Amino acid sequence: MTTPDPAGGADLHLELPAEGPRRTALTRALRDAVRSGRLAGGTRLPPYRTLAADLGLARNAVADAYAELVAEGWFTARQGSGTRVAERAATTAVRAGAPGPSPSAPRHDLLQGKPDPASFPRSAWAASARRALTAAPTEAFGPGDPQGRPELRQALADYLSRARGVRTTPANIVICSGFANGLHLLASVRPRDWAVEAYGLPFHHGILETSGVRAHPIPVDEDGAGTTELPSRARTLLLTPAHQFPTGGRLLPARRAAAVEWARSTGGVIVEDDYDGEFRYDRKPVGAVQGLAPEHVVYAGSLSKSLSPAIRLGWLVLPDHLVDRVLAAKGLRESWASALDQLALADFITCDAYDRHVRRMRKRYRQRRDQLLSALSAQAPHLRVTGISAGLHAVLELPPNHEAPALAAARAAGLALDGLSTYHHPAAPPPSREGLVIGYAALPDAAFGRALDALSEVIRRVTA
Amino acid sequence: MTTPDPAGGADLHLELPAEGPRRTALTRALRDAVRSGRLAGGTRLPPYRTLAADLGLARNAVADAYAELVAEGWFTARQGSGTRVAERAATTAVRAGAPGPSPSAPRHDLLQGKPDPASFPRSAWAASARRALTAAPTEAFGPGDPQGRPELRQALADYLSRARGVRTTPANIVICSGFANGLHLLASVRPRDWAVEAYGLPFHHGILETSGVRAHPIPVDEDGAGTTELPSRARTLLLTPAHQFPTGGRLLPARRAAAVEWARSTGGVIVEDDYDGEFRYDRKPVGAVQGLAPEHVVYAGSLSKSLSPAIRLGWLVLPDHLVDRVLAAKGLRESWASALDQLALADFITCDAYDRHVRRMRKRYRQRRDQLLSALSAQAPHLRVTGISAGLHAVLELPPNHEAPALAAARAAGLALDGLSTYHHPAAPPPSREGLVIGYAALPDAAFGRALDALSEVIRRVTA
Repeated sequence: MTTPDPAGGADLHLELPAEGPRRTALTRALRDAVRSGRLAGGTRLPPYRTLAADLGLARNAVADAYAELVAEGWFTARQGSGTRVAERAATTAVRAGAPGPSPSAPRHDLLQGKPDPASFPRSAWAASARRALTAAPTEAFGPGDPQGRPELRQALADYLSRARGVRTTPANIVICSGFANGLHLLASVRPRDWAVEAYGLPFHHGILETSGVRAHPIPVDEDGAGTTELPSRARTLLLTPAHQFPTGGRLLPARRAAAVEWARSTGGVIVEDDYDGEFRYDRKPVGAVQGLAPEHVVYAGSLSKSLSPAIRLGWLVLPDHLVDRVLAAKGLRESWASALDQLALADFITCDAYDRHVRRMRKRYRQRRDQLLSALSAQAPHLRVTGISAGLHAVLELPPNHEAPALAAARAAGLALDGLSTYHHPAAPPPSREGLVIGYAALPDAAFGRALDALSEVIRRVTA
Repeated sequence: MTTPDPAGGADLHLELPAEGPRRTALTRALRDAVRSGRLAGGTRLPPYRTLAADLGLARNAVADAYAELVAEGWFTARQGSGTRVAERAATTAVRAGAPGPSPSAPRHDLLQGKPDPASFPRSAWAASARRALTAAPTEAFGPGDPQGRPELRQALADYLSRARGVRTTPANIVICSGFANGLHLLASVRPRDWAVEAYGLPFHHGILETSGVRAHPIPVDEDGAGTTELPSRARTLLLTPAHQFPTGGRLLPARRAAAVEWARSTGGVIVEDDYDGEFRYDRKPVGAVQGLAPEHVVYAGSLSKSLSPAIRLGWLVLPDHLVDRVLAAKGLRESWASALDQLALADFITCDAYDRHVRRMRKRYRQRRDQLLSALSAQAPHLRVTGISAGLHAVLELPPNHEAPALAAARAAGLALDGLSTYHHPAAPPPSREGLVIGYAALPDAAFGRALDALSEVIRRVTA
């Protein structure tokens, strides 16, 4: 099997208006084509030069339009296989257009990043919300403090210290509406050069790019990011130490120490994205790097994996010298996160409902992981599965030139999942690894069983 | 009395680091001075040239730093009296720094823009939240649709049609986290030139400015904005037709028609900020301009006045041609508004609790307004009070050269309120009106009585 012909891609008919800026018109036409479903998720786009020739545009105009749509999440840029329509973009577009299942929506959703929506603790949350509404001081219903409710900052300071080894006080915590919001804020207050892991979420890469950050990718292996040699210009280092995203490694203690030493000696700042640190299956959860050097690490967490992305709450634990600057960037008047959700979460944590939920989900997700591992080992015992000691997803490693065909077969079988290359930073050297990133947390039991059957069949065919 | 000496302003000692960009250092030092309380709310800053000379900086660097801090809400630029520390900035800084009343915090808060926090319908909201949590489909706890929950969009389409004369469908509504968030989104999808009312919220002016919008102020009188002659370059027109903010006029029917005709003939878009349209005291609420021309008007509303700014929910009702563009700007992955709050609000509207709350508050705020009017007419029967037929604030008009002394006296008496000049667009011709903008909704009854006494005393002295 070979890498797909780079000159290929979807046959694409676009009509641009005769007047006005051409690049803007192209960006809009491509976006509309995705939203309307004309361009399905996973579709490969024509190379720049082909589309530029078709439309009589400069090649750069097409490249810029693609880059903008990657940053917005409509497209994904895959190393070595061009630009594609994001699976999620198509799913969302279809859902927004016509509620309910649609014939073109994937039948089996194994996309990473989603906790189980059916396990949301509705009664416990409603009880916390009611208690919080009853107990809240009157001023809680007035204009919010951009830093966040003091009740929540206190509850988080206690919880993060106890559960994640974070050393902080409520004064150093800023509530935001999720990790992406926090990353936006940090990008606006830190110098331009950031070291980032060679693998990460394209959405985060896009946020940094649109914020004017110059990203310097650093290599990633099974022991996490290579922090022992960092780009000399970088003043900020974005890491996923507990469970490298998405490749799954845990940052080696020596590499943690090297990162902290780098921050101390250069005055740099580590941004620790602890996106799924609560879900560790093989031992006690790995403590946060922040605990080693609170004055040099921003610890960032959110509810998106541990409870639900429907509650838009995240938190930054900041070194003293960054608190005022992040608050200024946040602005005095836009306290994005719902004060009611903040108060409910403070109660939810304080009454131990959060701990109970995490324990329950850890057990459930471990069972799901085990189910995935048996299915994969039955079908392809020669393939390695990595990143399995934590989180809500695993990586099935594939031999060279197998990822693109596997993704094509998966799409044909109605499976929604991503390849490793989706997460590879476009500025990093070409990746030597291929694989499938498999989310195992979100589906109901029966649907998960069917998805595993479909996945096994795809793997059997592709590796036959 | 004379306008304060423009060469005056606070005596200000700042130390900037020897290295690094000077303007950034100055911006940071000024921000820190406000946050730490060194620069109190209302303090007038030195003119550019004075501070520039003191610090050995270019005058432009100081002007830029002031402009940035105005955009962020820390400073306000008052026509004819220089730049001042925002009252709100100091209040927030004090509150964030030390919870509880502080000696430097104003004793009487008559700042506009805040509904009564004590009237928040805690039980009714908790009931809606519980019902919504019980009834929500499983997918509601998964990743959100950036457009917003369908339940809420349906409830809003029905409500806005019934209560505000808006003509729309759920497909044209995009949920956001408040008007400011909506304005950000619109600024990013509309061409650069906007016509704005000569009076408005500095925070909104700042959002437009940081989004690269070129604002063309249009005059405002007691019949609202002058829409019969619009700047030829403008393609977007930002209006507060129901109750001009903050001067209080209701847009004349002929001017509504002129605005719509302008939009139809030029392909322009009207952005209708209906910030307090529900609170009309003299007749039936004025219907939305949007109802006249749904394809040319973006109708924007939020909960910030009608219920509470603590629930970060707003909505844009968009013409067909803007829906996809606004959704693209919003991004596929950041559905900022809490899905739980959205579901709770959908229930709250559907079960008529929202209507009941608005009726109850309309009665309460009208009583408050009457109380304010009797206090003012007892003290200063010769002064006009305008904008009284709607909303949560009124304007006490003052003779020339009386606003600055009145504000100084108010500050000395522990009263927090703004002058009309705070809301005057810096690019508009110098204003001919002076006055005080008095918020009457937020204080508890006893505190409101005391605030009115203090205000009466200030007015007696200043107009004696």
